[in-house]
Order: sequence, then C-alpha cells, then structure tokens
Amino acid sequence: MDAIGVDIGGTKIAAGVVDDAGVVRAQRRYDTDPTDPVAIESAVIRAVNELRAEHQVAAVGVAAAGYVSPQRDGMVFAPNIAWRDYPLRERLAPGIDLPIVIENDANAAGWAEFRFGRGRHAESMVMLTVGTGLGGAIIVDGRLLRGAFGAAGEIGHMQMVPSGRYCGCGHEGCWEMYGSGRALTRAARAAAVAYPDRARAIIELAGGPGQKIKGPHVTQAAQAGDPLAIELLAELGAWLGAGISDLAAIVDPEMAVIGGGVAEAGALLLEPARESFNRHLTARGFRGELTIHLAELGNEAGIVGAADLART
Amino acid sequence: MDAIGVDIGGTKIAAGVVDDAGVVRAQRRYDTDPTDPVAIESAVIRAVNELRAEHQVAAVGVAAAGYVSPQRDGMVFAPNIAWRDYPLRERLAPGIDLPIVIENDANAAGWAEFRFGRGRHAESMVMLTVGTGLGGAIIVDGRLLRGAFGAAGEIGHMQMVPSGRYCGCGHEGCWEMYGSGRALTRAARAAAVAYPDRARAIIELAGGPGQKIKGPHVTQAAQAGDPLAIELLAELGAWLGAGISDLAAIVDPEMAVIGGGVAEAGALLLEPARESFNRHLTARGFRGELTIHLAELGNEAGIVGAADLART
Amino acid sequence: MDAIGVDIGGTKIAAGVVDDAGVVRAQRRYDTDPTDPVAIESAVIRAVNELRAEHQVAAVGVAAAGYVSPQRDGMVFAPNIAWRDYPLRERLAPGIDLPIVIENDANAAGWAEFRFGRGRHAESMVMLTVGTGLGGAIIVDGRLLRGAFGAAGEIGHMQMVPSGRYCGCGHEGCWEMYGSGRALTRAARAAAVAYPDRARAIIELAGGPGQKIKGPHVTQAAQAGDPLAIELLAELGAWLGAGISDLAAIVDPEMAVIGGGVAEAGALLLEPARESFNRHLTARGFRGELTIHLAELGNEAGIVGAADLART
Amino acid sequence: MDAIGVDIGGTKIAAGVVDDAGVVRAQRRYDTDPTDPVAIESAVIRAVNELRAEHQVAAVGVAAAGYVSPQRDGMVFAPNIAWRDYPLRERLAPGIDLPIVIENDANAAGWAEFRFGRGRHAESMVMLTVGTGLGGAIIVDGRLLRGAFGAAGEIGHMQMVPSGRYCGCGHEGCWEMYGSGRALTRAARAAAVAYPDRARAIIELAGGPGQKIKGPHVTQAAQAGDPLAIELLAELGAWLGAGISDLAAIVDPEMAVIGGGVAEAGALLLEPARESFNRHLTARGFRGELTIHLAELGNEAGIVGAADLART
Repeated sequence: MDAIGVDIGGTKIAAGVVDDAGVVRAQRRYDTDPTDPVAIESAVIRAVNELRAEHQVAAVGVAAAGYVSPQRDGMVFAPNIAWRDYPLRERLAPGIDLPIVIENDANAAGWAEFRFGRGRHAESMVMLTVGTGLGGAIIVDGRLLRGAFGAAGEIGHMQMVPSGRYCGCGHEGCWEMYGSGRALTRAARAAAVAYPDRARAIIELAGGPGQKIKGPHVTQAAQAGDPLAIELLAELGAWLGAGISDLAAIVDPEMAVIGGGVAEAGALLLEPARESFNRHLTARGFRGELTIHLAELGNEAGIVGAADLART
Repeated sequence: MDAIGVDIGGTKIAAGVVDDAGVVRAQRRYDTDPTDPVAIESAVIRAVNELRAEHQVAAVGVAAAGYVSPQRDGMVFAPNIAWRDYPLRERLAPGIDLPIVIENDANAAGWAEFRFGRGRHAESMVMLTVGTGLGGAIIVDGRLLRGAFGAAGEIGHMQMVPSGRYCGCGHEGCWEMYGSGRALTRAARAAAVAYPDRARAIIELAGGPGQKIKGPHVTQAAQAGDPLAIELLAELGAWLGAGISDLAAIVDPEMAVIGGGVAEAGALLLEPARESFNRHLTARGFRGELTIHLAELGNEAGIVGAADLART
Repeated sequence: MDAIGVDIGGTKIAAGVVDDAGVVRAQRRYDTDPTDPVAIESAVIRAVNELRAEHQVAAVGVAAAGYVSPQRDGMVFAPNIAWRDYPLRERLAPGIDLPIVIENDANAAGWAEFRFGRGRHAESMVMLTVGTGLGGAIIVDGRLLRGAFGAAGEIGHMQMVPSGRYCGCGHEGCWEMYGSGRALTRAARAAAVAYPDRARAIIELAGGPGQKIKGPHVTQAAQAGDPLAIELLAELGAWLGAGISDLAAIVDPEMAVIGGGVAEAGALLLEPARESFNRHLTARGFRGELTIHLAELGNEAGIVGAADLART
Repeated sequence: MDAIGVDIGGTKIAAGVVDDAGVVRAQRRYDTDPTDPVAIESAVIRAVNELRAEHQVAAVGVAAAGYVSPQRDGMVFAPNIAWRDYPLRERLAPGIDLPIVIENDANAAGWAEFRFGRGRHAESMVMLTVGTGLGGAIIVDGRLLRGAFGAAGEIGHMQMVPSGRYCGCGHEGCWEMYGSGRALTRAARAAAVAYPDRARAIIELAGGPGQKIKGPHVTQAAQAGDPLAIELLAELGAWLGAGISDLAAIVDPEMAVIGGGVAEAGALLLEPARESFNRHLTARGFRGELTIHLAELGNEAGIVGAADLART
C-alpha cells in the first residue's frame, strides 16, 4: 500500500506519496528554518495532510539527519536542528492521524537504494551517501541494520587516520574528513594555497581561491579534464575505497553503493574507489568480494526509503 | 538436543559434546599435523565417532581458522592449513553420519560467548578474540553475521594506520598488528632494543631480549607491577578501544566482549580499552553506547559455539 | 658596540638599543596596521631615529615573520603583511643612515637565546618558538643556519602526520598543527565538543565553548590542576618532544630550547616534551643526546637577536 | 696531498689512495668477518700499509656504519659490528704511522659527492644514501655537519609515520622503513602476498615469492616496464621526496643528492621523488628551493670521502 515519506533537510522539507514499487506519485516541498523546530513540524504536518487528502496511505516515515532513538520515535541528537532527546513522533502525532516512524536520513536513502535502486537484487549492501558529509546505511540479510542504540551505519565517524584531520565531532581523522564533499572542497582550497599554478582552472571556475571554491567547481573542472581536479576526485575515491575495504572486513556485504551529490562525478570517483578497494582488501582472490556501484536513485531516495520503512 | 563441536587448531583438534545449556559433557583431544589435511580429517572423524558412541547428538559443527564458504560447507582459505577452496564437509561426510556445518573459529567462539557467556542477555554483540592474531565475531538481532561471502567479522584486517605496520596479509596498518598477542610481543621486543633499561624486568623474565620475549612474559611482568609491561598492555588495550569505537560507529552493538589468551591480563587490558573507547566514540553522551567486558568462557568456547551453531 | 633591534609584529613594532651583553638599554613601541606597509616602515624609521638620537649605535637589525631573502635585504614572503619579494632594506634605507639587515623573527629570537639566554654556553642549539605558530632557529658551530634560500629553521612545516591536520600553508600534518598555541586552542575546542564533561573547567574559564576558548585558558586551567588541561599541554609537549627527536637525528644539536608564549606553561609542557623525546630518540644510550630547556629570555628576544645579528 | 680512505663494510674492507681531485689512484679490498673486530683491524692495517708502500700519503680516514664519537676517534655504536664505545683509532694507531680520523660511512660518501660529484659547485647539500638502509650527510656552508654528539645526518631515523612500520632501531615509522632498499624489498614481498597476480613479473624474476624477492628484482622488473615494479619504485621515490621536503624546511640546502645502490633505478626513482617534493614543500613559489639529483660517484664514494675528510 502507498505510504508517505518525509525528508527533513537543513533548509527545506520534502514529502511524497510512494507506492509499493518505490515510485513517487505526488510531492510537496516547503522551505523551513532549521532554528525553528515548531515551524518544521508545522510544515511536515501540512505537507502530509495535503498529500493524504488526495491519496490513500498507510503510514508516514520521517527521515532526518542525526541519531534516531532505538524505538524510532524521536531524535536523540541532530547536527543541524536543535533536537536533543526530542520526541518527534509525539510532536507530530496530534496533527497526523497515521502511524509514524522516524528514521535516519542516510538509512532511508540507503534502504531506498536497496529496495528499488542498485541493490534491488542484493541480499546485503552498504550505502555511502557522499554529500557535504559522509552518511551510511548497512543492510544485512535483507534488513536495515539499526544497531542497539539506533546508531549503526554512522560510517563517517570511523577513524581513518590517527591524529588526522579535525572533524566537527571533536575527534580526529574521521572518514568523513577524507571522503565527503566537505573534504573535497577543503582539499581544493588547500591546493589553491599550496600550488596555485596547478589549481588555476579550479580557481578560475570559482572566481577566486579560498571560500569561493566549492565542491561542484572541482567536479566541473574534472569533467572538463583539469588534471588537479581529476586528482582530487581520485583521492576522494581512494579514501572511499579504503574505507569500503574496512566495511568488507567487518560486515562483508554483497555490494557497496555510492550516492549523494558528490557521486555525480561518476566514473571519476567510482574507478579510483574500485582500484583503492582492490588494493586494500585483505585475502583478495581467496574470498568472494563485494562490487562497488553508483547509486541509481537521486534526490528522492530519502522520501522513498522513509515511506518504505514506514510500511514494513 | 546435544551436538558435537570440533575445534581444529594449528597443532591439535578438540571435540566435545555440548548440551542445550552450552555445557561440555564429554571431550576428546588429538594432536594433529597442520601439513597433513588427511590426518586432520581422520582425527576429526575418530573423535566424533568416539563421542557419538556414548552420546545422542543431532549434528556436528566444525570450526577452524580461515575463510569459510558462504554455504558453510568448506574452507575457502586457511592461514595455517593447506586448504584452498577445500570441501571439508564433503571430505568428512563419509565418516560421519550426521549433519555437518563448517564455521570460522572466531565466529564459533563469539557465538558461544553470546549464547552462554557474557553476552547471554544481549541482543547484539561483537567479540574480539585477542590471541596470537585478532579475530572477531559480530552478532546482530540475535544472529551471527556471516556476510555475503562468509567473511564478516574479519575485524583484524580493518586498517587502523595508513602506511602502518606490515601485516602478514600483505597490507599495512591492520588492526591485528596493534591489537593482538603478536603486536604485544613485537612491542616488547622493540622496547628491549629502544630502551633496554626500562625493559629490564621483561628481559629478565624472558631470559634475554629478541625472540626470547613472548607475550606471556609481558602479562606476567605487568601483573608483578612492571611499569613498561603495564604500559604495553595499556597501549594494546587503547588500540582495542579505538577499534571498538569504529565498530560502534558501523554496527552499533550492545556490547563488546574481549576474549582470547591475551584477555587473561584482565583489567590491565580492559580498563585502557574502555578509556580509549570513551575518548574515541563520536557523539558520546548524545547516543547510547556499548559496554566492554571480558569474556566469561575460556578455551572451550570454540567447541561450544561450533556445536550450538550446528544445531541452529 | 650597541646596535638597534626592531621586531615587526602583526599589530605593533618594537625597537630597542641592545648592548654587547644583550641588555636592552632603551625601547620604543608603536602600534601599526599590518595592511599598511608604508605605515609600518614609517614607524620603524621613527623608532630607530628616536633611539639613535640618544644612543651611539653601529647597525640596525629588523626582524619579521616570513621568508627572508638569502641576501638578508628583503622579505620574500610574509604570512601576515602583504610583502612578496619586498625590498625592505631598500625601503628603509633612505630614512635610516646605518647598515640594515633583515632577519626572520624566530631566527632573531633563537639567536638571542643562544647568545645571551639558555644557550649561551652551547656551541649548537635549536630553538622552538611556540607561539600561535611554531617557529624555529638552528645554530650550528656557533652560527645561525640560514639555509641556501634563507628558509632554514622553518621547522613548523616539517610533516609529522601523513594525511594529518590541515595547515594554513595548504599542506597536511605540519608540526605546527600539533605543537603550537593554535594546536592547543583547537584541541581544547575539540575536547569541548567531544567530551564536554571533561572540558567543563576550561569551558567555564573561557565563558563558553567554541571560539571563546583560547590557549591561555588551557594553561590557566592546567596550572589550577584541571586534568584535561594538563593532558592537552602534555600532548602538545609530546609532539614537541617527538619533533625534537627528529631534529636530533638530522642536526644533532647540543640542546633544544622551548620559548614563546606557550612555554609559559613551564614544566607542564617541558616534562612531557622530555619524556616524549626520550621515547622517540633512536639509539638512546648509544649516542650523546641533547637536553631540553625552557627559554630564559622573554618578549624582548626578537629585539635582542635582531640587534646582535646586525652587528655580527 | 694524497690520503688513504678506508671503507669498512659488513663483509669486506676497501682502502684506496685518493688524490686532491678525488681520484682513486690505487685500491685494496679484503674480505672480513663482521663478528671479529681484531681481524677487521688487521685487514685495515694491512691494506693501509700496502698502499703506503707505494704512495706518499698524509693521513688516513676510516669510514664505517654507526655513530662516531664527536672527537672522530672511535665508534660509539655500530649496527653490524660489535663496537660499543670502541676506541678504533687507538686500536689502529700502533699499526699505522699516520694521522687517523674515523668517519661515519654515509658522511664520507656524502662528502665525496659534495667535493667531487654532483655537489661540487654547491655550498650546501644533503646526501641520501639509499642502500639497504637510508643514510644521510648534511653539508652546510661548505662544511660537513657532524652534530654536537657526532650523530648529525642520521636522517633514516626521522619519524615519517606515527605508529608506522617497525624499524630495527626499536621505534616505529622511521624514514628508513619507507625509503630504503629494505623497504623496497619488503613492499615487493608484501605485494606478492596481497596481489600475486599484479606481482607475477617480480615473482618470476625472483624465482618465487617471499624471501626470494630482493630489491634488484624490483628494479630489473621496473626497467623492463612492469607496472607494479614501477609503482613500488615510485612509492619509494615519493617517500624520499616527502622527507627531502622536511629537510628543506629544517636545513634548506641548495640540493639533495640521491645515491646508494637503489639509486641505480635512475629516473624511475628520481622523478617520483621530485614530484613528491614539489607536492610537499611549504610556500613553494614564495621561496627558493633545492633541486634533486642522482649521485655521480659510485661505490668508491666512501673511500674518497674518508680520505678527503682525513686531510682537511
């Protein structure tokens, strides 16, 4: 039966009616203010009720960035919204006369990819959502791994480099600081300082060095053939591949799928990730091994996954 | 119903009848030659049949070090025995008239600990078997995680340090090279070169520096209060705690249990592991978190777990 | 004979008449604007001429942060002032009727320490100026090592950690990012995120977390006995000791002297540096080794060293 | 005037008469037993006296691996010969009626290269002797830097990777473990385990994996175009370049010269070293910078340098 998925982002919410095949049949999007939790809730309630008015739905799944409670009824901690031990379901319930579950947004996107995207024929999968940060979802034996405390799949905070780059979480060397859009942007800005001549194409695209440089400038330059930009994407891909080999050692999934905005770089990211994975995996040739792919679903993955998780 | 568990080690095999409560009711042990697979199979068959003659059993579980086939019927690769894509079940079946399953030894030990030891009240758990190497087992939602290719839980080959210590697997910086008996021994030998004065107690216990120093000398010295030995165990524990925080980010289990020979150091290993975990875990205080414990079962864990996995 | 030393800082210049014994006999200080090179030069000229009016002097030494030309007549690059291949001597000469030499500020401070401070009885020495950044000076065979391109002693940009913390220079893992006031501040801010409970004393002293925390809060908390602050200083000291062991392997000086604002932490910094050095130095016990000390001179070291280098 | 240089290796000694232009005019070589210091001394005395009988010489320089006393009269510690605080000059003097100085072998080779080889027009230079290990020599202002304790230029024990590969010195992550023939050999052996297919050419040349693989097999395979071998040499070169950038930050020499047996790989080593140096050097473009070259002198560099240092 159809369900509604809601994806609460930093500056807007998106809601959609999703059918059993993962198709989004109707959508609503509203801008929101991350500093105003009440306004966010109002927007969610409004969008859900608008969609319900036109579609028969069984449940609502709400996805957001952060740590979800093990009972899937609230947010323990969110990085972008002032939610701390926040009973989100309880807050939404009076306005929504349907079962509601709360999900981590990367888990929702990964679940969508598993059910309806690249992983639809797989039994197990890890999803890497390479956006500003690095989110993850782990599916084993056909089920989303949520963890004992709702925190499974927080792969971006696996440590890759002792005494490595500072992460916003207060620790050092987190995978996210090497394998994310933020890492790409920072690497490009550093290159503009360390070797401005090699970084000329990126600097020109960005209209200057420093804060003007954003991740998409690197991707754009790389797609135009700029050697430094290609190299920066390859480094990012190499860090992804290295971490995927760790996931293979621990979880041993059937496949790894790379999605998120940075994945739009396509083969420029994917091939270095594959090569790096091949170099890092222990006992290669003596064990079966996962394959690495680009995600098939796009922006709507969060909506689709949240809806699908709500009805299962 | 009772089942037989067999633990194939480097130089001997042990088999036992295990009841539903995880109690070993009878045992057989035979020395074996790791270079002679046929002799190993004969010893397994003999031990099983001797035990069967006196006990009613439903199945046989056989545990060994290495990569097990996803079908649990053979060894894809073993580090100590010349098994490569080896149909171990097919080889044993003519001599054993019972259902047989093959398991990884660390998985078997971890499963025993989960079912009958420290994890018996838990829903999920990671087990670290800190022996010569570093083995692992991961249990989620009450089930052993085997992985798509039978290689889940090979935590010892997660990379901790890029360009780090060489591992026997041909890669660098594997967790095993920092969190195992081998790492402890090597650290003690290095200390004997780098600062022989601080290493005096260990050198004396060992009867000399170099190859004479073994892991148990460090544990013994530490238990007698030697500052360097205590520090070496604390470093090992710190690496364990750091890696456990990675597992918490990925799998988010309810608890981590440390077993294996090195775990006999007890609190000298456990407390530094806990402290290091606390320092490494991202979002501490904003998320629930696992607890770290010493294993309760000893040497027989492999037998118990193999037997129990055979009947489930 | 007396000479004048000038220390050009980020927001002020200080000039002083220095006698043969390293005593500052008269001083002038003027605020300056780092974005206005002309105003800086005017202030230098004014201060020098005021001092000259009252003292007989032989030469003027001018110290500033950045890369000095090998001919000691200009700044090739300055981090804080818009000097690029800047002929500073030529700019000052019309207003100052005396020989002028340009020096790197850390070199000047190190030279003062060598001639009149902790190193006055030594033949060779490395100086670590641990301020916001990490500057260095190397003296061998009684002479300041300037390098073939005027860039010797830029120890803060020796790489300590591959893929380590981003440095403002565009590279990663520079020693300065681990052994400087900036590193201390950043570590304290990270600790306030990662473990706010342990960081409570520092947060209270600073009046809040984040940007409110400055290096001196850590030193102050440490001197009051706060365990985390003591630990953060000890980590900084440990990184200093590790790098000093590298300098011992390369340059093998008689002593290392730690100065700069962070050195005011005294033994809380010095003892961990010594201990770390002892642990890192290769062939300890089989070779003579440097000793590590705190600097004896304070803020005036730059003036004193610049003046002394001008007359030699 | 002519002088005699002696190079004491692990299994033989070589002595030669060297003229003012660095030309070896006569030579003697004798096999020796590293476990028999008395026999080594006899061989040295014999070779020197044979050469003296036919040539007029002013002094004798004796070079060996290890830490030389600051007075240049003995060996404080040698890695290969049982010398500890050994008065080598005093032991040789009764048999040799000439002034004798003791030198570190890498210093001798570097000095020869500076005086008569690639550095003959330079004022300052660092020499990297990439043999089994990684030795160094530093020349500043035309003089060999010996250090306060005779240990300058021990660059192989600068730490490149915290918690990195174990070094024979008892520490971890020493540059020697990444930039030496031993590192190359070990990397090739590891590759043969980690990816035997890619390592096929090297394995075939060596006649098998494991201990059969030696450094020259890699060089030979690389020169024949084998991709893995080229990559392994490039990695070695990259580590050399990274460390040279550290030396540039500290000592800032005019040039770096790479010699020793591994340097026979030529451009396959040199070009990656240059590229890596360019990527690692801070403030590139804002400061003058060293150039990197291959050594011009071969095996006789130790003899030539020891002789030349004896007469200066």
